[in-house]
Amino acid sequence: MMSEQHSATLLMSCPDQKGLVAAIANFLMTYNANILHADQHQDAGENLFLMRVEWDLDGFTLPMESFAAAFQPIADEHRMDWNVSLSSRKPRMAIFVSKYEHCLVDLLHRWRIGELGCDIPLVISNHEDCRRLVEFNGIPFHVVPVTRDNKAEAEAEQFRLLEEAGIDFVVLARYMQVLSADFVRRYPNRVINIHHSFLPAFDGAKPYHRAHARGVKLIGATSHYVTQDLDEGPIIEQEVARISHRDAVDALIEKGRDLEKVVLSRAVRWHVDNRVLSYCNKTVVFD
Amino acid sequence: MMSEQHSATLLMSCPDQKGLVAAIANFLMTYNANILHADQHQDAGENLFLMRVEWDLDGFTLPMESFAAAFQPIADEHRMDWNVSLSSRKPRMAIFVSKYEHCLVDLLHRWRIGELGCDIPLVISNHEDCRRLVEFNGIPFHVVPVTRDNKAEAEAEQFRLLEEAGIDFVVLARYMQVLSADFVRRYPNRVINIHHSFLPAFDGAKPYHRAHARGVKLIGATSHYVTQDLDEGPIIEQEVARISHRDAVDALIEKGRDLEKVVLSRAVRWHVDNRVLSYCNKTVVFD
Amino acid sequence: MMSEQHSATLLMSCPDQKGLVAAIANFLMTYNANILHADQHQDAGENLFLMRVEWDLDGFTLPMESFAAAFQPIADEHRMDWNVSLSSRKPRMAIFVSKYEHCLVDLLHRWRIGELGCDIPLVISNHEDCRRLVEFNGIPFHVVPVTRDNKAEAEAEQFRLLEEAGIDFVVLARYMQVLSADFVRRYPNRVINIHHSFLPAFDGAKPYHRAHARGVKLIGATSHYVTQDLDEGPIIEQEVARISHRDAVDALIEKGRDLEKVVLSRAVRWHVDNRVLSYCNKTVVFD
Amino acid sequence: MMSEQHSATLLMSCPDQKGLVAAIANFLMTYNANILHADQHQDAGENLFLMRVEWDLDGFTLPMESFAAAFQPIADEHRMDWNVSLSSRKPRMAIFVSKYEHCLVDLLHRWRIGELGCDIPLVISNHEDCRRLVEFNGIPFHVVPVTRDNKAEAEAEQFRLLEEAGIDFVVLARYMQVLSADFVRRYPNRVINIHHSFLPAFDGAKPYHRAHARGVKLIGATSHYVTQDLDEGPIIEQEVARISHRDAVDALIEKGRDLEKVVLSRAVRWHVDNRVLSYCNKTVVFD
Repeated sequence: MMSEQHSATLLMSCPDQKGLVAAIANFLMTYNANILHADQHQDAGENLFLMRVEWDLDGFTLPMESFAAAFQPIADEHRMDWNVSLSSRKPRMAIFVSKYEHCLVDLLHRWRIGELGCDIPLVISNHEDCRRLVEFNGIPFHVVPVTRDNKAEAEAEQFRLLEEAGIDFVVLARYMQVLSADFVRRYPNRVINIHHSFLPAFDGAKPYHRAHARGVKLIGATSHYVTQDLDEGPIIEQEVARISHRDAVDALIEKGRDLEKVVLSRAVRWHVDNRVLSYCNKTVVFD
Repeated sequence: MMSEQHSATLLMSCPDQKGLVAAIANFLMTYNANILHADQHQDAGENLFLMRVEWDLDGFTLPMESFAAAFQPIADEHRMDWNVSLSSRKPRMAIFVSKYEHCLVDLLHRWRIGELGCDIPLVISNHEDCRRLVEFNGIPFHVVPVTRDNKAEAEAEQFRLLEEAGIDFVVLARYMQVLSADFVRRYPNRVINIHHSFLPAFDGAKPYHRAHARGVKLIGATSHYVTQDLDEGPIIEQEVARISHRDAVDALIEKGRDLEKVVLSRAVRWHVDNRVLSYCNKTVVFD
Repeated sequence: MMSEQHSATLLMSCPDQKGLVAAIANFLMTYNANILHADQHQDAGENLFLMRVEWDLDGFTLPMESFAAAFQPIADEHRMDWNVSLSSRKPRMAIFVSKYEHCLVDLLHRWRIGELGCDIPLVISNHEDCRRLVEFNGIPFHVVPVTRDNKAEAEAEQFRLLEEAGIDFVVLARYMQVLSADFVRRYPNRVINIHHSFLPAFDGAKPYHRAHARGVKLIGATSHYVTQDLDEGPIIEQEVARISHRDAVDALIEKGRDLEKVVLSRAVRWHVDNRVLSYCNKTVVFD
Repeated sequence: MMSEQHSATLLMSCPDQKGLVAAIANFLMTYNANILHADQHQDAGENLFLMRVEWDLDGFTLPMESFAAAFQPIADEHRMDWNVSLSSRKPRMAIFVSKYEHCLVDLLHRWRIGELGCDIPLVISNHEDCRRLVEFNGIPFHVVPVTRDNKAEAEAEQFRLLEEAGIDFVVLARYMQVLSADFVRRYPNRVINIHHSFLPAFDGAKPYHRAHARGVKLIGATSHYVTQDLDEGPIIEQEVARISHRDAVDALIEKGRDLEKVVLSRAVRWHVDNRVLSYCNKTVVFD
């Protein structure tokens, strides 16, 4: 649920040590914060502490423009990676799509009824097919054709559109092109993909066909941050559905669509709500 | 997982207000606590704050025998209900069973391989059937027959056995007798029952027969704390399984057994690990 | 998956007796049928035999206009209730909706991409809200306002629209009005509703609020044929989702939307594919 | 459910063609069979027809010792692979186990209460650990130590024990040794293994450790027939459970135990009930 009230959310990670919860709680208390949610995680193997804390800005006596200056000494002392986001500033999401529209329809509907607390300044596609649907939702639709030969130019054009629109993160809603390492590097942990299998099973092409050939009894879908290694980025969410010998490949594709929609939309939601921290090629999804 | 290390766990609830996390974190920091896990919950509707915090006793400078005296001023200031438990002191569980042995078998096996961090000083039954199984596990087995006429005497005998064995909580592993209000009052939030339906559907007798008659497509099981109102206590855990028109009542009973085992054992596990707080006839199960 | 080929589907039920499978298989063989799917069910308690058989019309030597005359003697001999449907004749579905659009969006999208093998000649609502969405999909949208006082007239108008459009069955996609017994009687087993709880738990009003108050650990949704008894008709499909103490009522409503969409669309799909037989206030959903 | 009545079950597969259902139904009708269940499957890609049919032997006028002679002409005509089994003749199962006892405990309990309609003439292990448990259940327990150097002798001894006991099929209940190709060849589709991952993900060693390292959000278990290719045999059943970043490897192992028990016991049950047909390295599990 989107908080009605204005709130701030701090995401941080640092080497594990005593007193971290108290240090952050005290800092916030000094300025009269009302903590709405707090969740933390220790990874003993990596000796890492990770935390998410959200507090009400109503009554918070530290102006947010001074937050960084006030907090940095504590962050330095504990060697924290951190960022803070404000509920009043919606993140700006771009959607990339090709021809399959089910994930796009799903995301746009969730956005329209307020499930996703982000702005969608544009949708980019390598095909015309989804224009009518996108424009019905009042969102600008840009076609950037991609061929074998124009990949670099196409990405340059995509990047220009993203920059111009002030995009924070990109969602690949069954976008059937592989992004270059260069593109991915510009958006670290900020490109979310949906892969139509239960990773690491059936990474790469035609996962439903291969699932059918292998005779699995469940199919899956996986949302993950895109890294330079195809289908190997940090997993955000996964889900499966039961199939049987009666289900031909077409039935897997159809049942899979429902998985893809749910798994991608959860990842987008959690990312928008600043619930996801990535480390060691894994994610923590805070409650 | 049972912590290898010695730890203490504080469970508390109080009216919600600013500064609670900081107050507790600071108290623990004063004595050099290493917090292992912390989880909190606010119920806005009830204006209630609930928290579970577990810390390592290695290096903790406050002797646990002095904990209450040291903590009580903070508890008083914030009107906390609280209790603290030590991993070094295993809770003592009694199991009540009748003739169906599947939940008993499951609990005893989990206990034997270390999944349940409790002692089991005795099993009580109104029938002889499970004696061999219980004694195979090295646990004393007591038969207390229950008839229409001897209910009060039977409960007196059960209570005597529980007292003598220093029992902390009771698990009804498909025990087919209803406990008296008097008995239940003696163990508030300390009697766990498994009901073989997805409550509140099909409370009372013969839930699988009624589920079959209604034509539901999923069956369920529910573990809950026993209160004086039959099948209406705070729910700890629920799970469901898919059925079809092919499943006659016998098949529901059989599929239900697997649900009952899993749902009861999770409740016992969470109770043993001090993860469950009950309020307003609901439970919070802390992570 | 819609069969590409033209096929016929027979749904039948009759008192159980020997030789039913052979009788039907032989009848179809006489006319050189290629059976694509066959599934049967015996309800021993009710002494009932139910069967669904689908065969390819390519090479079938009995013209379908003569089917009834040819088959009736066998049906009479075994006292069968039966009907046959042709894949070439798509059933005509009307959707009733109020203001919540999630089920409507979902059904329209599935229909657009070919998941639902039906026609949708019209959508009827008691509010204007969904007009733009429906018309975007090229479907006529009719507003029939319903007040306390005009219920009979409103239903008369709805019925006129349905008759005029040659509607076979009606889907209530979160339509917030109770249909009269008279209306329901006109469409026996041909009005499909989605109820936002795991029936029989929380039938009637505000199920998510009541689920929250009861502290259940799973929420559900149920699709069923509408009968004169509110929320008591034959259940077609149910599904549940896990919730926790963190989920306020708003979160239940939101998670519930995903259940409602899936559970309603499955029921519609199975109904369209002639997979559902209703008896004794239950359903058989054939594979 | 085990049928109380005496029944026979025919499992068959053959090239798909018209009239197969009628041919079998007529054959059975000729001898006055009362068909209890029938289920069939067509694999269009492989042009294969597979069927399972179970009929009541009460009133069946063909003595079962004459079945093969009577049925073979039909089988020849349609080039059927087929076998028939009698409910009065329980299949004989051997269990192989090492030290982990959870699957063994589960199978033995299900067997004791009648869920599994088989005999268990013996349990074989490479360790002494499970002796007491097995003998508590009244089953002979044989230790056949396996070392690097004695593998061939050990298998010879195992094979001798299996032959002597008239074993029909073998269940590897977390047996930590790889069987030789020679051993496997002797029991085609008659050795059932449980692998503790969602195959094909994490085949081979230490799947829980690798699942943890990859950061998956669900773990799984897979039961399959053993072939000469490790973890690549026909999959019978799979199931998954949700995990989170809070679950260390130990927690995965623990949650996995519940999956392994359920997934293995379903496979054993279906095999015992003659529900599983294997083809093209896949299985059909008939309803």
